[in-house]
Amino acid sequence: MEHEKFAEHGHRLIDWITEYMSEGYSGPVLPKTEPGAVMAQLPETPPLEAEPADAVFADFKNIVLPNVTHWNDPRFFAYFPANHSGPGILGDLLSSGLGVNAMSWATSPAATELEIRMIDWLGQMLGLPWRGCIQDTASSATLCAVLAARERLADINQAGFYTQKPMTAYTSEHAHSVLQKAVWIAGMGERFLRLIPADRHFAMQPEALREAVARDVAAGFRPAIVMSTVGTTSSTAVDPVAEIATIAGEYDMWHHVDAALAGSAAILPEMRWLMDGVPEADSFCFNPHKWMFTNFDCSALFVRQPEALKKALSITPEFLKTAQDSAVENFRDWGVQLGRRFRALKLWYVIRCYGVSGLQAKIREHLRMATWFADQVEREAGLTLVTRPRLNTVCFMADSDERSRALMMAVNASGEAYLSHTVLDDRYVVRVAFGQTHSTFAHVEKLWQLLRRLHREMVTPAE
Amino acid sequence: MEHEKFAEHGHRLIDWITEYMSEGYSGPVLPKTEPGAVMAQLPETPPLEAEPADAVFADFKNIVLPNVTHWNDPRFFAYFPANHSGPGILGDLLSSGLGVNAMSWATSPAATELEIRMIDWLGQMLGLPWRGCIQDTASSATLCAVLAARERLADINQAGFYTQKPMTAYTSEHAHSVLQKAVWIAGMGERFLRLIPADRHFAMQPEALREAVARDVAAGFRPAIVMSTVGTTSSTAVDPVAEIATIAGEYDMWHHVDAALAGSAAILPEMRWLMDGVPEADSFCFNPHKWMFTNFDCSALFVRQPEALKKALSITPEFLKTAQDSAVENFRDWGVQLGRRFRALKLWYVIRCYGVSGLQAKIREHLRMATWFADQVEREAGLTLVTRPRLNTVCFMADSDERSRALMMAVNASGEAYLSHTVLDDRYVVRVAFGQTHSTFAHVEKLWQLLRRLHREMVTPAE
Ligand SMILES: Cc1ncc(COP(=O)(O)O)c(C=O)c1O
Ligand SMILES: Cc1ncc(COP(=O)(O)O)c(C=O)c1O
Repeated sequence: MEHEKFAEHGHRLIDWITEYMSEGYSGPVLPKTEPGAVMAQLPETPPLEAEPADAVFADFKNIVLPNVTHWNDPRFFAYFPANHSGPGILGDLLSSGLGVNAMSWATSPAATELEIRMIDWLGQMLGLPWRGCIQDTASSATLCAVLAARERLADINQAGFYTQKPMTAYTSEHAHSVLQKAVWIAGMGERFLRLIPADRHFAMQPEALREAVARDVAAGFRPAIVMSTVGTTSSTAVDPVAEIATIAGEYDMWHHVDAALAGSAAILPEMRWLMDGVPEADSFCFNPHKWMFTNFDCSALFVRQPEALKKALSITPEFLKTAQDSAVENFRDWGVQLGRRFRALKLWYVIRCYGVSGLQAKIREHLRMATWFADQVEREAGLTLVTRPRLNTVCFMADSDERSRALMMAVNASGEAYLSHTVLDDRYVVRVAFGQTHSTFAHVEKLWQLLRRLHREMVTPAE
Repeated sequence: MEHEKFAEHGHRLIDWITEYMSEGYSGPVLPKTEPGAVMAQLPETPPLEAEPADAVFADFKNIVLPNVTHWNDPRFFAYFPANHSGPGILGDLLSSGLGVNAMSWATSPAATELEIRMIDWLGQMLGLPWRGCIQDTASSATLCAVLAARERLADINQAGFYTQKPMTAYTSEHAHSVLQKAVWIAGMGERFLRLIPADRHFAMQPEALREAVARDVAAGFRPAIVMSTVGTTSSTAVDPVAEIATIAGEYDMWHHVDAALAGSAAILPEMRWLMDGVPEADSFCFNPHKWMFTNFDCSALFVRQPEALKKALSITPEFLKTAQDSAVENFRDWGVQLGRRFRALKLWYVIRCYGVSGLQAKIREHLRMATWFADQVEREAGLTLVTRPRLNTVCFMADSDERSRALMMAVNASGEAYLSHTVLDDRYVVRVAFGQTHSTFAHVEKLWQLLRRLHREMVTPAE
């Protein structure tokens, strides 16, 4: 591709993204794609000769766009936000343009040092004065925490697990499946992962944790790690982190706090209680790629004692040795992957272009949306709020599981909004998650009107 | 950030990237940064109020740019290529603009189906008709292979390792450290990883592998996986994959082939021999983000029997269940991470905008650069070629380790080129890796002139 062609097409894409962000997508937010329908439109063999970028872009608009779920459309309220933003996109573009590999300090000093500073800034915004690094996802960050916990108890990297007493892990029954998966990957075995029962607000019961740990110690097992969640995926429940920290201390366990979604809200003074007890934990992660306008992927992992993390993950073959190794951080030693994208750039753009107060204002607005929406649900006959939202997600039910599901399906089939579901206390529950960059109160009101209309039609079918 | 501001700044960045790609960086390719120098220029606290994007960009140019290692500068010959390209940057920009999460088919049908098709296309280009998915790095891809191998022998995810007979793993002494790290993470233990000796071309000796496996079986261990390398990092040695496949078959081990760098070259008919034996293996990975113009990150993992991979990595909590689960692939079940960026877009742009023949022409040119450079080294008194390059990397020595190191340091200190090193047969070896998108023969000649001049000055110091 000639350089002028790149520039020309680049300008076209910038204009298109501007339009997409300002006007949203004109078609359905959730596509009605049948499995295989996209594949069928894509040539079976790769082109031998170069094609113009415009041909790819035309196919993007005709084939891809109608068949993606529009996560950044203002009408997306499913799962959790994965919000992008102008500044995030710009920072990421610069990162692609530079194309540096941030695996070691020497392979790009500014990438490492800007990353250190961004973690610093985020830590100040959260009141957590720890060091850390940027990971791709909370999945990877959790795996790192589990591995640090594992290596703290025994040198499994070298010896393997075989002659060890079983190591046990603890998390709430409402914790995300990526925590479970980290335990699998580390070879610790689901059999030794205790899913601690939750209270009626879906938060971990610390007494049940204490009993489970005591039982395991009595059985001769070695408690390795407890993982608490600040903002569970289903219902944004908040585990009692401070009490869990005390128990972790008593039993000398690693304590990881997963705040993948909710961490962003802790930058609000009125939400700082979300961080209660976190400074007594060992590691903490949250995803700026979920709810802090930093497009995927960007997960911030903080650790109280980085040496424990590096002990688990550091390996330096000859060809990666550099003259500065003893004086600097090589972030490849802080994670699973060797190669690392320069992700600090997009975070720098986001924090500076919004300013901390700008980020706070946006997140505060999302919380108000959730409160407003919950109020409407509460007033509507036939709908039941599962809990008052303290974060961005509203969970509610119709008067039967079938009707809850049908209601969600009807909303999604309209193409005018996208919701997802969970199961809480064995009931099918509809979830509405706020936090998309481009959602305004007008979109939220429209969603409510749609949902109410569909619900009322269900309850009182038209003659 | 207002939408017009986004557009305005986006156009500015596109123009800057165009200039960076067409003219290269005017300063040194390897910065002379002292540890801490960048940090010292970055404010200690995050800004409370929004700043204009132009202020960030100005700081990018003043603080970041002089302190990054310019991986995509035509004068970068260190480590391995990590080449970006116009089409790759454009596809990645669209991916940021869309901001979809490709974790499940339903969370973005086109993202999953385009990914399937791209793996199809790459497979055709390599003669490997397997299914697969896009991972971030070879590190993650290798870890997935190790976990698939582990779960094939026993249900470690559920039971943990404790009651198991030790599982053994095998790779060459020249394999990349990420293979070792994957064995660590999986809990299998370095103690049970055999680094098989290499021949004088630095390729694994199959007979030594067979003996090691037989010894382990006799000791009551369970051989789980052998990992061969096509194109080692130090010297681009190629293990005898077909022979290793035979041994893997005899002992019913998983066989993973790491072609992170060299896989790209196998799209050339004359280099297709690199794939010999691969169809008899179980998994294969190569990085389009290294040497196929697809900016970081993008690693293609192929598996002969995807069920084995999914068995190791699939987990579906209630809130991720979708109506189409039984009819589609959910790629979160093919890897460690839940959240997934839409990486197939950039690959689509790259393959279509270059065309297969365009990709072949570029890679063929890089191979010619290596051959030409090796010829010059061979003719120069006092320099010794370590092996004739069959791929993109030239390894050579001066007449002592001290001189080799001093020569490399002098080249790097000039700012006019960047080389890196390794150790082979206990000798300090300088590596020159070709494959950057913007390097032309003129740059290669300049590098040679610089290196020859510095070497001659060393050998015959000026009066
Ligand atoms: C042969 C080989 N394997 C694995 C890797 C690791 O690649 P990644 O950074 O994608 O994990 C590299 C290069 O870094 C390599 O050359
Ligand atoms: C609480 C929580 N933890 C972990 C995750 C996993 O995030 P990631 O995709 O970054 O691994 C999520 C959301 O997906 C989440 O909500």
